[in-house]
Amino acid sequence: MVDVSHKPALFREAVAAGEIRLAPATLDLIEANQIAKGNVLATARLAGIMAAKRTGELIPLCHPLPITHCEVNFTVPAGRERIEITATARITAPTGVEMEALTAVSIAALTIYDMCKAVDKGMVIGAVRLVAKRKSVPAAGEGSMSKAQ
Amino acid sequence: MVDVSHKPALFREAVAAGEIRLAPATLDLIEANQIAKGNVLATARLAGIMAAKRTGELIPLCHPLPITHCEVNFTVPAGRERIEITATARITAPTGVEMEALTAVSIAALTIYDMCKAVDKGMVIGAVRLVAKRKSVPAAGEGSMSKAQ
Amino acid sequence: MVDVSHKPALFREAVAAGEIRLAPATLDLIEANQIAKGNVLATARLAGIMAAKRTGELIPLCHPLPITHCEVNFTVPAGRERIEITATARITAPTGVEMEALTAVSIAALTIYDMCKAVDKGMVIGAVRLVAKRKSVPAAGEGSMSKAQ
Amino acid sequence: MVDVSHKPALFREAVAAGEIRLAPATLDLIEANQIAKGNVLATARLAGIMAAKRTGELIPLCHPLPITHCEVNFTVPAGRERIEITATARITAPTGVEMEALTAVSIAALTIYDMCKAVDKGMVIGAVRLVAKRKSVPAAGEGSMSKAQ
Amino acid sequence: MVDVSHKPALFREAVAAGEIRLAPATLDLIEANQIAKGNVLATARLAGIMAAKRTGELIPLCHPLPITHCEVNFTVPAGRERIEITATARITAPTGVEMEALTAVSIAALTIYDMCKAVDKGMVIGAVRLVAKRKSVPAAGEGSMSKAQ
Amino acid sequence: MVDVSHKPALFREAVAAGEIRLAPATLDLIEANQIAKGNVLATARLAGIMAAKRTGELIPLCHPLPITHCEVNFTVPAGRERIEITATARITAPTGVEMEALTAVSIAALTIYDMCKAVDKGMVIGAVRLVAKRKSVPAAGEGSMSKAQ
Repeated sequence: MVDVSHKPALFREAVAAGEIRLAPATLDLIEANQIAKGNVLATARLAGIMAAKRTGELIPLCHPLPITHCEVNFTVPAGRERIEITATARITAPTGVEMEALTAVSIAALTIYDMCKAVDKGMVIGAVRLVAKRKSVPAAGEGSMSKAQ
Repeated sequence: MVDVSHKPALFREAVAAGEIRLAPATLDLIEANQIAKGNVLATARLAGIMAAKRTGELIPLCHPLPITHCEVNFTVPAGRERIEITATARITAPTGVEMEALTAVSIAALTIYDMCKAVDKGMVIGAVRLVAKRKSVPAAGEGSMSKAQ
Repeated sequence: MVDVSHKPALFREAVAAGEIRLAPATLDLIEANQIAKGNVLATARLAGIMAAKRTGELIPLCHPLPITHCEVNFTVPAGRERIEITATARITAPTGVEMEALTAVSIAALTIYDMCKAVDKGMVIGAVRLVAKRKSVPAAGEGSMSKAQ
Repeated sequence: MVDVSHKPALFREAVAAGEIRLAPATLDLIEANQIAKGNVLATARLAGIMAAKRTGELIPLCHPLPITHCEVNFTVPAGRERIEITATARITAPTGVEMEALTAVSIAALTIYDMCKAVDKGMVIGAVRLVAKRKSVPAAGEGSMSKAQ
Repeated sequence: MVDVSHKPALFREAVAAGEIRLAPATLDLIEANQIAKGNVLATARLAGIMAAKRTGELIPLCHPLPITHCEVNFTVPAGRERIEITATARITAPTGVEMEALTAVSIAALTIYDMCKAVDKGMVIGAVRLVAKRKSVPAAGEGSMSKAQ
Repeated sequence: MVDVSHKPALFREAVAAGEIRLAPATLDLIEANQIAKGNVLATARLAGIMAAKRTGELIPLCHPLPITHCEVNFTVPAGRERIEITATARITAPTGVEMEALTAVSIAALTIYDMCKAVDKGMVIGAVRLVAKRKSVPAAGEGSMSKAQ
């Protein structure tokens, strides 16, 4: 575990993305809310957010981070052969939140897989990567789980 | 998940309450420490505190909050037909701890239910609600899991 | 913790119920899917199911039970002043799943509270109770997480 | 992780023990229930039981085991310079519960340490070991979380 | 959550695979055990196994499954531009372990990412998919966490 | 739970130690990396670090602390009859991290026990104690999970 005890607490944001490839017919069922297990994307969004909060438990050398924000979004490109997943995580802390964003994407993708596996045996999760990352000195008076005014 | 990344870290306190209705004979057993599973209120207090610490894992859109205090108390009104439960949670953070206090009350009540269900089939948990909530600018020099001097 | 090591593994089902009282205007927002935090009932359903799976971690003397089913449902009575929550849990095991069903109801109610607390300060969770419980010898050839053929 | 997929599900019991050495004055405070943090042994007992249920999360290569029993007991030898801790775990499963019993002892000891550390700086936890272990074919009709009739 | 209460407990195995694409220089560092955070593949293996055990906590509608085996292996194809990850999970239960195997692969991949991200900014996780799945009636006398003699 | 809401956030460090006594032949197997379950010390190190991060879940009255560092080290004294374990935890917070360091030592020792128990029935964990503890005002500009500049 990297020692971040003496690093400055900066505002941190990370954006990760990924995709799950599936059959267009599966996508039709998801959009028509006809998957037997329930609303696929709403469930996957929650699963991703909840996993992001527990990243420090899952990835052995990640610091436990009380994140101040996580969101997970889905888009379907024109070809309709995949769902693209994007997750953003934020915190003010001495270390970044890449792993939180990547974990959110991965668990959201696995949740889609779980909910659709009864109707689609050929799904593949891929292109899971970091797409953006930034840090900045928090503004005076602004706070976070780890920042005082 | 509400983005609280840019909100100020204030001292926050929330008080929640609830009750579990039970038979007076059950209450007698609890007070005489004669419930087979052990000391009911001591166990319920710990269960409530431990659950408060994990609120962010249980409530999907709650922020993970390293709370600086949680206490759970019990009182028995004259009618002796119920136990009233009160929980207080505290933190210095950009978001409040209502859910932590409410979770502590709920899990404490469920624990009483679990320990007494062999002798009382009619218990009902109710009146779980927020009773107070306040926030203030932390004093200079004071700290918390999320506040520096 | 009650020693159930030598009790027979029976099919067990428990049904619990509860309610959250809220303003009719809040209910309108929920039904119109206009609560800022997202789909309230879908989120509460998942939170309840996920909590049921972790009951053994939350209630100190509950056995860890690999449940084979949990469902959470919501109904709104004509008066429109509350949401009724029902949860069913099932397993084949030497001990029952009342606490799993009650935990599902409680965490589902707390999740509704969390998602609506920005618009409704007067919600109260109540009437959390066991409504049915049954056990039976599992049919030959039927299985469960804890039953062999 | 050892593959136990094809081993028979036997009734298993393990007993572990350990001790925490502390000042006689600390022991006096514990017995008089005057430690500020609360009832020390009741809290340690629950912590040990709850940890036993989560052994599979803590010890990387342990199987997750839905134990059917765990108890934790304390005795104070005449010398009054230590508390002896004993824990018993049971299950019917294809693998044993030594680690569950040992984890219960260890976390119970750490909890005593935590509750008394404000008044005793010299405590030492030791002699944590397995003291007994047995297995037997479960009787017909007997069950467990992992045994059918 | 699909109700599997009345399905037979069969022996189940699932094999999942995936990959993480990285720079050959990163692979050199991993193989030379020169990544500052420690032994990358040993850590990723453990993270994958530990996550498989907690799949039911991460994927909202997965059953909690006390798996009897999980293994995670790594291979490096000749091109040396990626690490291939394979995970196998086993149980005797009324439902399968695809999600456990897929979760093991995903978290192992994320752990490699975490350990190498300081030296490689271009890693991509992909090709996460189920590669095999089988079930069979357990042999008489064989057991598992969910099988009796 | 001690109320630390109004205590200053200081830099805190705690060092704990402990030992596991085992047969020299077991030590030989560990050092030769011939224990069937895998690399013993690497696994124990990770288990200790991961447990330290979850101390607040295991010890009932511990505050949840987003630690900024944890390391676990092993040494073998000349007598070769035991492995000495040392763990260090760090944070900037209003309360200390003794329990995090002690938990890391304990779970690391239990993990060694688990991995070697097939070949050594006489292991004993002991001498688990706090060896050092310090706190200081964090330097201006330095940060931590709970400190801003």
